[in-house]
Amino acid sequence: MTGTLYGVGVGPGDPELLTLKALGVLRAAKVVAYPAPMTGDSKARAIAAAHIGNGKIEIAIRLPFTSERADTDARYDAAAKELGGHLAEGRDVAFLCLGDPLFYGTFAQILPRIAGKFPVAVIPGVTSLAAASAALVLPVAMKDEILSVIPATLDEQTIAARIETADCAAVVKIGRHLAKVRRVVETLGLADRARYVEFVTTGRERLRALSEVAEDEAEYFALVLIRKGNAP
Amino acid sequence: MTGTLYGVGVGPGDPELLTLKALGVLRAAKVVAYPAPMTGDSKARAIAAAHIGNGKIEIAIRLPFTSERADTDARYDAAAKELGGHLAEGRDVAFLCLGDPLFYGTFAQILPRIAGKFPVAVIPGVTSLAAASAALVLPVAMKDEILSVIPATLDEQTIAARIETADCAAVVKIGRHLAKVRRVVETLGLADRARYVEFVTTGRERLRALSEVAEDEAEYFALVLIRKGNAP
Repeated sequence: MTGTLYGVGVGPGDPELLTLKALGVLRAAKVVAYPAPMTGDSKARAIAAAHIGNGKIEIAIRLPFTSERADTDARYDAAAKELGGHLAEGRDVAFLCLGDPLFYGTFAQILPRIAGKFPVAVIPGVTSLAAASAALVLPVAMKDEILSVIPATLDEQTIAARIETADCAAVVKIGRHLAKVRRVVETLGLADRARYVEFVTTGRERLRALSEVAEDEAEYFALVLIRKGNAP
Repeated sequence: MTGTLYGVGVGPGDPELLTLKALGVLRAAKVVAYPAPMTGDSKARAIAAAHIGNGKIEIAIRLPFTSERADTDARYDAAAKELGGHLAEGRDVAFLCLGDPLFYGTFAQILPRIAGKFPVAVIPGVTSLAAASAALVLPVAMKDEILSVIPATLDEQTIAARIETADCAAVVKIGRHLAKVRRVVETLGLADRARYVEFVTTGRERLRALSEVAEDEAEYFALVLIRKGNAP
């Protein structure tokens, strides 16, 4: 009997945004894994901390905040090997994921290294996008509107083109691309339609018009929501 | 002291996908409202049923499944007036929403009729999109991919154009537009990349390749997920 790898969405930050299902899987699993920075605490673990309890085997998958793939690939390989060891011995693994496991998440890197060898199940979670629109009390999209979700890592022309052909846009993973995104939005004449949200649902949450954001860098998970149509 | 209107996301169908925060708001509110068909039960209420308990004032907002706006506008006006009566008398109202309240939801129709008059807060929920990708164990989007969310109610040319310029697409609100969406996907040569998901996370959940779906009509909340890139 092998164990199952569960990708568990823990939501955007507020521990109250965990689902009942995530709690159940987390409590039942013998092994709890989570992404973490090279030094310091894991955000995903912090969100679920009150429910981890004692007696779990914990695995921090330490990843550098970098776009260099070579190094992170080796780290994912090593992590998958360690998780695979537990699965082979019949222990279920709860892999905690910020937001939703399959919406721009780290879990998509672990998945191909485990799928086909061991059973995998995914517990969906509340995304930072849903939480940002809730905080703003502004629809992500409604009625017949088209929504584009655009990583801020892309080049200026691509971001601009995809915002232009959508009714609503969410530019995600802002991080060090904040100045670029603000420039694109201003060039498109959408500055008064763009809202900036950082640290959503945490004690550090801030909501501002993008035009009021003076910084050139943002939190990695910050996002910009754009509605072209009138808000309801 | 006026009450607060809470838009409460109850997730896609499985009652276990309620968040702890949704539960807390639901339990504390004196009034529970939810959209419902003209006859029969409310899906949103059914998801949360175990937690509604006795002693609540319940308001079913009955809406015809139609695209005729005139009639539904009058119904939203009447609903907002009824909810406003409770809010004016200091009673909190939990308005239950399938999935997430601000992601293509009915709540966006209630919101402009209440906002500015009474306090409004939104509890984000798990979307049917996140649940569909979890059921398929297939990323909605990853890394630098652009995601388009496209209502199936749009015309064929628009749907096709928006799928073409995205890396990943979710065609939502399939309902009676299933044959049209299948035609668009086949014309684009993406039939082998399109997955159809209906009644996600419920006992009636079905996952199929879109090319294997013979029907011309679908559940209203069914959706089609398309990944152009290789799945991980």
